[in-house]
Order: sequence, then structure tokens, then C-alpha cells
Amino acid sequence: MTNVQITLVQIDNYGPWTVTPDPRREADLQTLQSRLYADLSQSFGTRDGYVFFTRFDNMVAVTNGSDLETHARVQESIRNRYPVTVSLGVGTGARPTDALVDATAHLQAAGSAQDAERREVLAGQPLATAERADDDVRIAHFDVNDATGKYTDELDAFSTFVRIEQGYASLMRVLHDDHDALAFFVGGDNVIALCPELERRDYEAIIEHVRSEADMSLKVGVGAGYTATDAGMAAKHALEACRERNTTVEGDV
Amino acid sequence: MTNVQITLVQIDNYGPWTVTPDPRREADLQTLQSRLYADLSQSFGTRDGYVFFTRFDNMVAVTNGSDLETHARVQESIRNRYPVTVSLGVGTGARPTDALVDATAHLQAAGSAQDAERREVLAGQPLATAERADDDVRIAHFDVNDATGKYTDELDAFSTFVRIEQGYASLMRVLHDDHDALAFFVGGDNVIALCPELERRDYEAIIEHVRSEADMSLKVGVGAGYTATDAGMAAKHALEACRERNTTVEGDV
Amino acid sequence: MTNVQITLVQIDNYGPWTVTPDPRREADLQTLQSRLYADLSQSFGTRDGYVFFTRFDNMVAVTNGSDLETHARVQESIRNRYPVTVSLGVGTGARPTDALVDATAHLQAAGSAQDAERREVLAGQPLATAERADDDVRIAHFDVNDATGKYTDELDAFSTFVRIEQGYASLMRVLHDDHDALAFFVGGDNVIALCPELERRDYEAIIEHVRSEADMSLKVGVGAGYTATDAGMAAKHALEACRERNTTVEGDV
Amino acid sequence: MTNVQITLVQIDNYGPWTVTPDPRREADLQTLQSRLYADLSQSFGTRDGYVFFTRFDNMVAVTNGSDLETHARVQESIRNRYPVTVSLGVGTGARPTDALVDATAHLQAAGSAQDAERREVLAGQPLATAERADDDVRIAHFDVNDATGKYTDELDAFSTFVRIEQGYASLMRVLHDDHDALAFFVGGDNVIALCPELERRDYEAIIEHVRSEADMSLKVGVGAGYTATDAGMAAKHALEACRERNTTVEGDV
Repeated sequence: MTNVQITLVQIDNYGPWTVTPDPRREADLQTLQSRLYADLSQSFGTRDGYVFFTRFDNMVAVTNGSDLETHARVQESIRNRYPVTVSLGVGTGARPTDALVDATAHLQAAGSAQDAERREVLAGQPLATAERADDDVRIAHFDVNDATGKYTDELDAFSTFVRIEQGYASLMRVLHDDHDALAFFVGGDNVIALCPELERRDYEAIIEHVRSEADMSLKVGVGAGYTATDAGMAAKHALEACRERNTTVEGDV
Repeated sequence: MTNVQITLVQIDNYGPWTVTPDPRREADLQTLQSRLYADLSQSFGTRDGYVFFTRFDNMVAVTNGSDLETHARVQESIRNRYPVTVSLGVGTGARPTDALVDATAHLQAAGSAQDAERREVLAGQPLATAERADDDVRIAHFDVNDATGKYTDELDAFSTFVRIEQGYASLMRVLHDDHDALAFFVGGDNVIALCPELERRDYEAIIEHVRSEADMSLKVGVGAGYTATDAGMAAKHALEACRERNTTVEGDV
Repeated sequence: MTNVQITLVQIDNYGPWTVTPDPRREADLQTLQSRLYADLSQSFGTRDGYVFFTRFDNMVAVTNGSDLETHARVQESIRNRYPVTVSLGVGTGARPTDALVDATAHLQAAGSAQDAERREVLAGQPLATAERADDDVRIAHFDVNDATGKYTDELDAFSTFVRIEQGYASLMRVLHDDHDALAFFVGGDNVIALCPELERRDYEAIIEHVRSEADMSLKVGVGAGYTATDAGMAAKHALEACRERNTTVEGDV
Repeated sequence: MTNVQITLVQIDNYGPWTVTPDPRREADLQTLQSRLYADLSQSFGTRDGYVFFTRFDNMVAVTNGSDLETHARVQESIRNRYPVTVSLGVGTGARPTDALVDATAHLQAAGSAQDAERREVLAGQPLATAERADDDVRIAHFDVNDATGKYTDELDAFSTFVRIEQGYASLMRVLHDDHDALAFFVGGDNVIALCPELERRDYEAIIEHVRSEADMSLKVGVGAGYTATDAGMAAKHALEACRERNTTVEGDV
């Protein structure tokens, strides 16, 4: 059984800030958002966590192994270096969706995302060390078969992008609705999903679903581990095994 | 009539690099990608361009006003500071889709995105100064009505994200397929679209389409300008006018 | 005759900010300062300027070619992405020291560096295009002969650092006091000096001075150009010529 | 007695890289160096270490509390995101100078800083947890009395810089030569020194030395702690106490 710890990172009162006193230049907002994401990715990443950019003003992190002190330190560092602050909600659960519901609830209980008074919330409870196990995190790393040959080198860049987005939308929905998993596009033709324990036939059905719904052919490597990095690296190696063996599902299934 | 200049930024041979000699840590790849994007956003942004992250290994920039020398300088700066290089294809056209098809064709003609020998291509031709006009770029800035109240503060963070993604997918398709426009999610509940000249009733129909297909209620500010920043800032101000007047379409329509 | 444009960049009211309400973590301050410097280096650098970190809260930039609009855009971008703001004083002069005195005077006239009310000053006047010439900027790039063999690989890292600092202090003083030039340590064993027009024998005397005062053996490449980058690249190539020919002064002298 | 762990960070074969195949633009080198420093400052800083930029191609870090695995992770992250790699030598000792001699020796034993074959050395041994104590690290934080009023607001920016540099040079030498301490300029008018245990009268003598040699008036806050951050924050608070009480030495002396 998985036991995942998720942190919801929410920029405090960000929407109003972007237009106060006048709309701020989009290039600056994009730079701000992507660098804030990069910093969080390093902060949690060097502690074996994963951060997904999601909507940028709301980011989802897998933080098994990071305690509240680490979270507070990250929060302080953002406050010291950016014109905005972040709130952090920490949730846990046997299934990824449950953990994120828990993480979200902590922030919502503290106030609205656009409440000017609600700043730098740090709420929720990380996993105790005694509760943690070697297969707490399960990650499935999907990519598109021959995306470069079939799309990037053949279609114009936006048409390729539309195809990749449609494949992702289909995959995200089936994983979320049928399997309580959270899937994130991470660039190129890659999707990383935080999953509960699933069977090989589940992954085969998921891939078949995306093929029939979005006409896109995927493969997947699955890994389990003590942290997101452990699970994610196992998943990447499994995906390499798919490439070598010309298979569609490899790894811890 | 719009006259847009688009630059397709493609990281050279990126997929293979990410797994050579072994898969690289995802946190590092995410940091690399988002910082590269942030740098491009500043480089072109301070020259009044817009850059969209798209798939991160393929990014789309609106670069009216940047000549080949500026492009070469950006390319050189990336080479000097990153472990990867980028190729740049520059395209122009009366309609956004045409410009991106043109930009893509220049890179595809030079070789595959995963050809180890194809590095730092710089191809295509920027707009001559004499060809440029004050309404060359047209930008529509969409956001979701009361996204915080209806989604962020009510649903769990992933369910909100799924809703936003579905609205974006619907909007992206209708703009692309029916209007030759290119729409990009830019974070939060915001989508920025590079458009040809459209009528008010076109925008009303687009918003109605997304409402009926994805059950999402949008508003839009439209701006035209000499550069992406000119058009984009006008669009942002028009969107503020929507908020103040409680309307759904404002600006240069 | 040189004709240099210098911008003094001063973080507004920075000292008090670093200890309000309590002292902020040094690692965050160091990160903030060095990233702010990196951003300015790119912003002015891609416009063929040079920025020197100097004291970090006061930075000196050579900005021939950047007009007030560019300065205002850089200032706005900092405000949008950092928790601090910057004031910019622009000065010009036939000699580097004169230009920096002019730049400084503009900021001092507007108020104290620690005046909480003095924010985002932009004062002074860039060179008009008609005044500019191909040899406006003159740069001398110094390095230490065999620094790696004599110091880095032989002494402990701090003793090497002390030696390099002493050589720099000697060089900085003789250039400033005798030649109205501004010298900046730029890392490793490199010093870049913004100079007026000097003779070969001046450079030989400067090198001899540092040899006798600080027991350090230098060489120098000198370049002139329309911008800092033009002059600086010429200086770098001249320094390479010193290495190849085993000489101590090369370039535009 | 102090027990300090120092890491010498050296960019591998950096000098040759900066001029291969041709000299690279200075603005890009400055950006690369300062961002690399910023990243290290965050990586070790969020683990309660301090990093000093020193010569940028050779940086000195106080890393009490970071084990070899953390060092290896930082090294890997640099390799994945920069066009250069770094070697890390870890040294320990009762006196700061001894620790840095030890750290340097590990890198020198592995080859020259400009040996193209010597890459990503990780050598030396961190402190074992059992050896660590609450006062292992001792930091003295110096600043200049009324630097803004006496220098920044009065002199031109370079003259102020020359004065600050001369004060630093004097302070660095007396601390190193007489007290086995390592002093680093950290921006503004601030110098942070890694010290052994010193008496109040030692600090008074040091301040008097700088007053008589460099005509500069300093004050200092001293802190001791388990890590650099613990000691450094205590030193910052002690320096604030100097300001409030109008004294010249406060803290753990």
C-alpha cells in the first residue's frame, strides 16, 4: 500500500498582486513563476521530493521525507527572495488523491487563496518516520512512442502540442477518475503520475484507453520507493527497459 | 491584418540527453527547463516579445521587433550557460498558425529534433522594419470568471487543475481549428492567445463554445499593438475593464 | 578620447531591509544579491554592456548604447520579481572616474541610500547617438601569469585568495589614483578595468608597480570599441595574444 | 574549541573553458558564475551552511552538518544544469585555516585545477555526528560604522568601494595572520569571518588595527553554534545589539 505525502504550494493572494496597481508585464510574471518553481524543485528535489508546476500559482509537491522544519525553511527563503509569499498545506494518505484532498483542506480551512490577510500558512502533518516504508511512493513515468518521428519532425509545433495536450488530458482523466492517481505533464512528451499500487493489466487498460480516446500510443515505466526520487528513478529505468525491449509496461507491477 | 513573427525554440537533441548515460534526476531536468524558459522570457521580454513554455523542449515566442542578431545573441548566451543548446526557427505570416508553420518548417528542413549533428540552427527571416505596422500583433487574454471562488477555494487542487485544463483544451481547439489562433496556458486561470483580427461576435461564440463544451465561464480582453508587449498590455487593461464593467469581451474588437 | 556611460545601480534602503523585522538569513541574502547581479548582467549584457558586482548593493555598469527607456524597463523588471527595488544614476564623461562621479551625484542628489522614501530613482542622461564613436569605451583585461601553477595548485585556497586580493588592491589603486581608471575583480585571477586612453608605457609602468608593490606578475590585453562588449572582446583577444606571444601588453595601445 | 568543516568548491578546468574555442562573452561568464554561486548558497544554506564567493571559480563553504551524500547530490545537480562541473574537497580542523588547508590538499592531491582529466573529485571526510558540538562554528560579523553616512552618501561610488576594499584587506590580513581566521566580504559594508575562539580583547585589538591601518571604524557581533547558520544568526543578533547599545563588540566573547 502506498503512503504518500503531498504538499500543496499556493502563492498568497497572487491574482490580485499581478494587477496591482496596474497589470504587470507578462514576461516578468512568467519569469517570476518559472523561477519560483525552479527553486522549489531544487529545494524539495535535493531532499528527494518532486514538484510539479501544475498551475504555477498552485503547485503540487511529493514530499515524503521533508518535515515541517524543512517546509518552514523553504517558506522563509521564498519570503526573503521574492515579492510574493507562499502557503504550504501538507497532506498524507494511502491514495494520492486522498493526500492532495487533505493538503488542500488545510489551506482552504485557513482562508481564501485571495484573502490578503491569509499569508504563509503552514498546516498539516508530515508522515512520522515510524510510519514510512520502502514502497510508500509509486510513480509511473509515461512517454509517447516515437513522438519525435511521428509528431515533432512531422507536424508544425502547435499541432504537435495540441496532440500531446490531448493525450495528456485523456491520460490525466482516466488515471484520476478510475485509479485515484495524479498525472502531471513534465515537458516534451513525458507525463509523470503519482499512483496507488496498480496491476500490469491496469496499466495496459490505461494505455489502451488513451490509444482509443486520443489516438496516442504510450509506454510506461513504474517504480516504487521510499521517496519520490527513489520511485521516480526506478520508473525512469523501467521506461528505458521498455525502449530496449520494445514493450509497453515495465517495472514494479 | 495582423503580421506576426514567431520563433520556435527547440532544445537540440534533448530527449536523448536526458537519459545519457543514465536517466538524469527529474528535479534537475525540471529546474533546467524552467530556468531556461525564464531566461528566454526575459531575453525576448525586455525586447517586447512574449515566450510561451508550451512543451518546454519546444517553446513558442512572439518576437516582432527582434532581428537575427538578437536571436544569435540569445542562442550564444544559452550555449555559454547551459549544458544544452537551442535551435531557433523564425517564421512570419498574416495569421498566427501560418507564422508557426513557417517557423517549424525552417527547423525541420535542417534536420530532426533528435539529430545529434543538428545543433544551433538559426533559420528564417524576421519582418523587415518597413513591413511592420502598429497593429501587427493581436492578443486575447482570457481568464475564468471567479476561478478562486468557484474552484480554488472549493475543490481539491487537482480537481481544480483538471477543470482548468479541460477549459483550456476546449479553448485551444476552437481557437486553432476555427480561427487560426494559438492559445497558451500561462498559469492560474489565464490563457493568452495570439489571434488574427476577429470580430466581437467571434469572441462571444468562442466563449459560448467553451461554456457549452467544458462548462466553464470565460471573459476576454483583446489588444492590438506593434509588439507582443504592446498588444498584451492592451489586452490586460481590457480584461480589467471586463472586471469593472462585468462584461465578457472588451478591447480592440 | 574615450566617452563612457556609466550606470550606478543602488538597491534602495537595502541595509535596513536586511535586518527588518529581524536579521534575514545570510544564505538568502547572498542568493538574492548574486541573482540580482546575474539578471542585471544579462539585461545590460545582451545590450552590449558590462555590469560589475562591486559591493552588490551598489553595482557599476558600463552602459554605452542603453537609453533611458531600457533603464526604466530593467528597473521595472526588478520591481516585479524581487522584494527590493533599485535606483539608477546615469553619468557620462571623457574619463571613467568622471562618469562615475556624475552617476553617483544623480543618486545622492535624490536622497540617501537609506532613505525609505527614495525609491526607484532614474536620473542622469545617456549619451546621444550623435555623440557616440567607435572608440568610446576602452577596456584593459588583466590576469595573473600562471596563477594556477604558482598559487591555486600550490597554496591553500585562502592564501591564494589573499594574494590575488592584494594584487587587485594594488592594481585598483594605481589605476584609480594615477590614471582615472576603474578596475573590477571579475573572478579567478582576472581584473577588468575601464580606462581612458593610455600608452603602452603606462601599462608597463602599471604592471611594474603591481610587481614591486604586491609581488605579482600581470599581463594585460587592451581593447577599444563602441560598446563595453566590443572593447571587452577586443581586450580578451589581445590577452590571448599575450599568452601566445609570451608578452605582457597587447592590443589597442 | 571550534571544530569546523570546510568545503572547497572548485570549478573544473574553468580558465581554459572560458577561452575555448574563443573567449566567451564576459556578461555570460559573470551570469554563470554568480548563478552557480547562488545555487550553492541555497543548496548548502538550506542545510544550515554558508558559502562565500571568494574567487567564484574557487568558493569556500562552511558545511558542518552536510555529509558526503549531500555533497555528491549537489555535485550531480551542478553537472545536470551547467556547462561546467565542480570538484569538492572537504576538510576539518580545530582552526578555520587548518580546515581549509585540509580541504585544499584533497583537491591538489587529485590533480591540477586546470587538468582536463581531473573532474568531479569528491574527497575528504566530513565530521562524524559524534564529534560535533554546539559551539563548533564561531562566526564574527563585522560592519562599518555609519558606512552610508560617511561613504555611500558622501563619496563617489568607486571611492567608497576603494575604502571598503582597503578596510576589508586590512581586516582579512590581521584575522588570517594573527588569528587563523578566514574573513569574507559579503557585500555592502559587511565582512563575515570564520574564527577560532577569541577573547573580547582580541576583537578590540583587531578593530583597533583596522582603524589605525585603514582608517576605518568597525563593530562586530560574535556568535557560536552547531552550524554556520546557528553561529551566523547569533552573530547578526549580536551586531544588532552593538547598534542598539552603541558598542563595538557584542556576543559570544
